[in-house]
Amino acid sequence: MLENSSNILFTVRWEKNSLVLIDQRKLPAKLSYFRCKTYQDVAFAIRNLVVRGAPAIGVTAAFGLVLASKKSKAKNITSFQKDLKKAYSLIRSTRPTAINLQWALDRIIEKTRNLDSVVKVKQAIFREAMKMAEEDILINKSMGLEGEILISDGDTIMTHCNAGSLATVAYGTALGVVRAAKGSGKNISVVATETRPVMQGSRLTVFELKHDQIDVSLIPDTAVGYTMSKGKIQHVIVGADRILKSGHVFNKIGTYQLAVLAKRHKIPFYVAAPLSTFDLNNTLKDIIIEERSENEVKKIGKKLIAPKDVRVMNPAFDVTPPSLITRIITEKGILEPPYSKSIKKVFSNLF
Amino acid sequence: MLENSSNILFTVRWEKNSLVLIDQRKLPAKLSYFRCKTYQDVAFAIRNLVVRGAPAIGVTAAFGLVLASKKSKAKNITSFQKDLKKAYSLIRSTRPTAINLQWALDRIIEKTRNLDSVVKVKQAIFREAMKMAEEDILINKSMGLEGEILISDGDTIMTHCNAGSLATVAYGTALGVVRAAKGSGKNISVVATETRPVMQGSRLTVFELKHDQIDVSLIPDTAVGYTMSKGKIQHVIVGADRILKSGHVFNKIGTYQLAVLAKRHKIPFYVAAPLSTFDLNNTLKDIIIEERSENEVKKIGKKLIAPKDVRVMNPAFDVTPPSLITRIITEKGILEPPYSKSIKKVFSNLF
Repeated sequence: MLENSSNILFTVRWEKNSLVLIDQRKLPAKLSYFRCKTYQDVAFAIRNLVVRGAPAIGVTAAFGLVLASKKSKAKNITSFQKDLKKAYSLIRSTRPTAINLQWALDRIIEKTRNLDSVVKVKQAIFREAMKMAEEDILINKSMGLEGEILISDGDTIMTHCNAGSLATVAYGTALGVVRAAKGSGKNISVVATETRPVMQGSRLTVFELKHDQIDVSLIPDTAVGYTMSKGKIQHVIVGADRILKSGHVFNKIGTYQLAVLAKRHKIPFYVAAPLSTFDLNNTLKDIIIEERSENEVKKIGKKLIAPKDVRVMNPAFDVTPPSLITRIITEKGILEPPYSKSIKKVFSNLF
Repeated sequence: MLENSSNILFTVRWEKNSLVLIDQRKLPAKLSYFRCKTYQDVAFAIRNLVVRGAPAIGVTAAFGLVLASKKSKAKNITSFQKDLKKAYSLIRSTRPTAINLQWALDRIIEKTRNLDSVVKVKQAIFREAMKMAEEDILINKSMGLEGEILISDGDTIMTHCNAGSLATVAYGTALGVVRAAKGSGKNISVVATETRPVMQGSRLTVFELKHDQIDVSLIPDTAVGYTMSKGKIQHVIVGADRILKSGHVFNKIGTYQLAVLAKRHKIPFYVAAPLSTFDLNNTLKDIIIEERSENEVKKIGKKLIAPKDVRVMNPAFDVTPPSLITRIITEKGILEPPYSKSIKKVFSNLF
């Protein structure tokens, strides 16, 4: 993983034996960093949205196991594995819907098999986590290059939540496509939805696009339909937290209604996600939609903005059916419907 | 207009030669009142959302002319009319989209014609404003009785923004239907959307329904589609700021996307609005959609929640086409599509 000597925002960075995260709770007011020295710090960071975004969560979780591994005083493989298992369970429990979390943890654990010393295992874990972080950037750049051919000079792209550099190690998935289009010389504008209740759109997407001098406008989530009806949007691109083999996409609450509205207005609706986001084992009914705290809706900071005893429904994700998705952009190419076929194909080509 | 001796919330009330408004900027934290002693106070109150909601704005505007009339020192009709004209213009300029504002002002002005003394005109203005305030409650109750037959015991109704007692003198339009259904013994639940950016749903709708002990849950605007997809909603009922003779409905930003989503989920979508909301003279292209301050989106109170130099689009209203509207509920009965016919009919029956 590169050191942060350039002007690039690194959301997740390994430095001096700890994991340094951009503290996304503080954005856009302040660009500050949260340093994780233990796997418990990592679990806290994921659970409390210091770091969020499926790919960034994955890499962060992997480094959670690195920290657990480095701190372990175990002298033999069995007790080391026990320490690692404890860290795995805690980190795994932080957020249930994004699959990259589990994918990353399992990938690290896989590397610990069949090694005969604690030292070798510790080295393998660290190497794998570093590799995942570097891969994340490369994958996003590939995805960007694959996706940017869908975009024309002068287009305006609507996005929801933050599927940008702040949702990954750097560069971004949906916003990676925007960056690649921009990089190839196209003049691109972005419309970011606010994304209540956590406001990843206004706080994060606007912040990072302005940081990179990409043209961006902000709208409330209520203005999605109106903005589309005015003919101002040529494409919608979002990220994903989990994609099933049927093509159903779990992503930030509000994604589904963007897709319904895009369909009505004949605006192409793209999902940009690395192959690590795909869940080939589960079906719709297996997936838990995370319900988050009522306070995310009732409070801004410490200020109460709704009657304090009101019942709140605060699902963090929704499901967009494949019939509403025009294309899925991956690092291995653009998938077309029917997704049950194209997803199967892209994975069978991998092996 | 009744004195506020009961537990009913009066949004607009005449008391001791001034107009007393619930200060909706302070809700839900504090139930406090804003006293208008001049027509300039009234203009301020409408412009700054001390009072909002098409019917409430109408009655408030009418009392603005009452205040202008009472303060006028004019000795003859001509100079009195000049004073009144000044007040009319200022109040008229406060908000461009809600038609009730103009309707109410014109109705008061109409009463000043053909009277031969300033005293008689002043009396006529005051009587007409008081009549409009009383009528508003009666109209809402009629609308409630007309609409409640659409609702079954056990239903859950989604509403957007606030079309309740706080949007009228009392009782409400969309929430008037809910109150009437409840009053007729039906067990009714409401799902209120937050309604960014001004949050009339969380601040006002939740406040007034809890005040009246009607079951209510709050959702972020991003969770509309998800909540509908879970089969939790039997009806959507909203108010309106202006309805054209074609059946196009201008209402709070976000209404249009609720209607699109309701259609997708086969949920009936109702608009509840008094006949004073109908604009039989203008067509779509004539109506200005009010763009409000960027700070409504960028700030909560004084706290900045987005990068301060970001461009914001903040339209206050959108347009829902007649094809998405199942019924329009008025005090003179329920209108069915095609609305161009049924609207024409209800107005021709009036005269």
